[in-house]
Amino acid sequence: MTNQGTNLDPWYSHYADRTAGLAASEVRALFAVASRPEVVSLAGGMPFVSALPQDLIAGAFERTMRDFGPMALQYGSGQGMPALREHILDVMALEGIRGSVDDVVVTTGSQHALELVTKLFINPGDVVIAEAPSYVTALTVFKSYQATVSHVVIDEFGLVPEALEERILALKAEGRTIKFLYTVPTFGNPSGVTMSWERRVRVLEICRAHGILVLEDNPYGLLYFDQPAPHAMRSVEEDGVIYLGTFSKTLAPGFRLGWALAPHAIREKLILANEAAVLSPSSFTQGLVSEYLSAADWRGQIDTFRGVYRERRDAMLTALDDYLPDLSWTNPNGGFYVWVTLPENLDSKSMLPRAVKELVAYTPGTAFFADGSGRTALRLSFCYPTPEFIREGIRRLSTVVNGELELLSTFSQTGPLETVRPTEKIISPPANLG
Amino acid sequence: MTNQGTNLDPWYSHYADRTAGLAASEVRALFAVASRPEVVSLAGGMPFVSALPQDLIAGAFERTMRDFGPMALQYGSGQGMPALREHILDVMALEGIRGSVDDVVVTTGSQHALELVTKLFINPGDVVIAEAPSYVTALTVFKSYQATVSHVVIDEFGLVPEALEERILALKAEGRTIKFLYTVPTFGNPSGVTMSWERRVRVLEICRAHGILVLEDNPYGLLYFDQPAPHAMRSVEEDGVIYLGTFSKTLAPGFRLGWALAPHAIREKLILANEAAVLSPSSFTQGLVSEYLSAADWRGQIDTFRGVYRERRDAMLTALDDYLPDLSWTNPNGGFYVWVTLPENLDSKSMLPRAVKELVAYTPGTAFFADGSGRTALRLSFCYPTPEFIREGIRRLSTVVNGELELLSTFSQTGPLETVRPTEKIISPPANLG
Repeated sequence: MTNQGTNLDPWYSHYADRTAGLAASEVRALFAVASRPEVVSLAGGMPFVSALPQDLIAGAFERTMRDFGPMALQYGSGQGMPALREHILDVMALEGIRGSVDDVVVTTGSQHALELVTKLFINPGDVVIAEAPSYVTALTVFKSYQATVSHVVIDEFGLVPEALEERILALKAEGRTIKFLYTVPTFGNPSGVTMSWERRVRVLEICRAHGILVLEDNPYGLLYFDQPAPHAMRSVEEDGVIYLGTFSKTLAPGFRLGWALAPHAIREKLILANEAAVLSPSSFTQGLVSEYLSAADWRGQIDTFRGVYRERRDAMLTALDDYLPDLSWTNPNGGFYVWVTLPENLDSKSMLPRAVKELVAYTPGTAFFADGSGRTALRLSFCYPTPEFIREGIRRLSTVVNGELELLSTFSQTGPLETVRPTEKIISPPANLG
Repeated sequence: MTNQGTNLDPWYSHYADRTAGLAASEVRALFAVASRPEVVSLAGGMPFVSALPQDLIAGAFERTMRDFGPMALQYGSGQGMPALREHILDVMALEGIRGSVDDVVVTTGSQHALELVTKLFINPGDVVIAEAPSYVTALTVFKSYQATVSHVVIDEFGLVPEALEERILALKAEGRTIKFLYTVPTFGNPSGVTMSWERRVRVLEICRAHGILVLEDNPYGLLYFDQPAPHAMRSVEEDGVIYLGTFSKTLAPGFRLGWALAPHAIREKLILANEAAVLSPSSFTQGLVSEYLSAADWRGQIDTFRGVYRERRDAMLTALDDYLPDLSWTNPNGGFYVWVTLPENLDSKSMLPRAVKELVAYTPGTAFFADGSGRTALRLSFCYPTPEFIREGIRRLSTVVNGELELLSTFSQTGPLETVRPTEKIISPPANLG
């Protein structure tokens, strides 16, 4: 009866070697759980699209039909519509990026840009350097092309340059081929951490010196709460950065539109890869988003989103202070996520079923590491639930954490006060320690 | 000055081995040419979306906003919306397919299903058996995963079973790993040929006996002109066929929605690959197409498309009879394409610049072979231009062909009458010989 699933698949021996890395992610399994209405889900990364007025979409639809007509229903170019690419330059300019409309490639969400870049660059065994922790589905893509992910530690100022350089030298000494550095430098997923300006410049210098391409993934940059984030890494360096952007967080993910801004020669290959994969991105959603950006107050709409998420971030941090003062967590100035570090003898993955029983869900930290670390960490999302539900979710989480700690103290010699001191601090901003 | 483009790319040495097969297709270069209004393009495969009433789309949009609301703007599942998958079963039932809604995976056009299946199955050097000629962008995908494409000849009844079996045995004798057979059995692209029912059954038997998966790509099946095509191969065989369908030809390509119906175990892997590539297909266009299929007379709309394309097919065949009676061509009973065989001393690729000068475009036959054959053939599309333009396009083409033949006869010993006899008959239905 073991391996039954395997034996039932007559094509089991036919799959490519790369499918060995293809398994249902921990986040995916959680989506099913999180969809039950009685569960407060702090697990997913769904933007709160209800804050987007439907009449803005209706207006954009009408103009699309009127102005684009049959073109919106037709195949388009593999690079994407020129009108939309022009608007994308305006969006990127808000983060200090100057680029050419010729170097923008529209993709089916920025996820697909990630997939295409990985397909273009990764031979089996090539190394991708990635922040620890990293966006889970980026890790899935890297694995699906048989990359080796090598994690570099981050702190409250983002990627640690000394650790990066050390790692590069060590990998080169081993004869490994490093293809690119993957980073979400602004309001990182899952860390919530933002790389400082000095670090950005230094990381780019290091990568340039070692001939390593930087893949800058920036879904959250415009969703700052207090002050704007430092300008994008792409604003400093043109030839060494592939920049990924998306409309999923500033407009809506349902359109599946993102983009890459790439060095000219890479851009040409990206277009060919895009054509092979999907022929062209959707003309219909491109027309619609293009019309939205032409006529709607999209900057004002981003302000609205900022207000919504700021209030939820505040609700989450206050609730953490109130209910789980002994834990440590990051203090995001934008984006969707808080990264929580548990006492070292707790395990976020094995604690999850108990959390779900208490009607709260989160994402275990291990999802965000390629190497099995992250056991004592977890990601909390404040993007989707209301402030009231966030507070209730954290309250439920505290019941779970305290219950686990009590259980441990019953069976251990040391008391609960000792056990709550976090020692595995992947990210440990001292200011946030409880 | 040679290799300048290469030298200018600082990342030239960084690309994965698989990008070596990534080059701009011949069809792609033609799109630029064909877009000039004075050129009659018989080159592209763009459906005539103007035959789709805009109010059908507007109605579907309104119902999407009303019934799906924020769900249409949100991320969805990697498998696609259940409501849409139910409708897809109805569409496939028209071609004799019975399947479970659980085994349908919605993709970003059927092109993306092709990409995902190839990613799942192909190790570098694995063999894909494909009809000769085959859909050009399928060949691009296979090459992009470093497959070896092995062509098997077709005649007016489609893939020749004896040739298929012979090829399989030869490849196995060489120790090659054959992963799947790729076929467009109904109104083939580019051949216009349909595989007979007997051949379908026989090809499936052969593939089953040799443990070879069949990838049945069926974009055109519902667009028949005279009588319906034989039922899909998937109607015969469930476990050995991955079936690909699309809304690009029966509705509109601008939505980028297609699907795969796959054996259960493969289906699970397809969903994971889809999630890695794009997280989920567009909820917005899925909602819209789902509403269109719920409320609009989509069967009637397909009838309308059939009428449009039948008239254009007739116009093309009549014009070929009138202007190029000495050539041979296929007689499609549906779909978008006619495959023309030139006299053996003509070269469709080198003739193309002259054709463009005469303001007509076509796709050279070499685009549809992985091995450089197809020199004396070309594909004509009747899907997009009006009947009048089709006739004018063929008239211009006859000027080019006759001019080339005259030129040849001036410089050769034999007269033009001898040179027009086609001898390289990849497809040579005797009934159609001029």
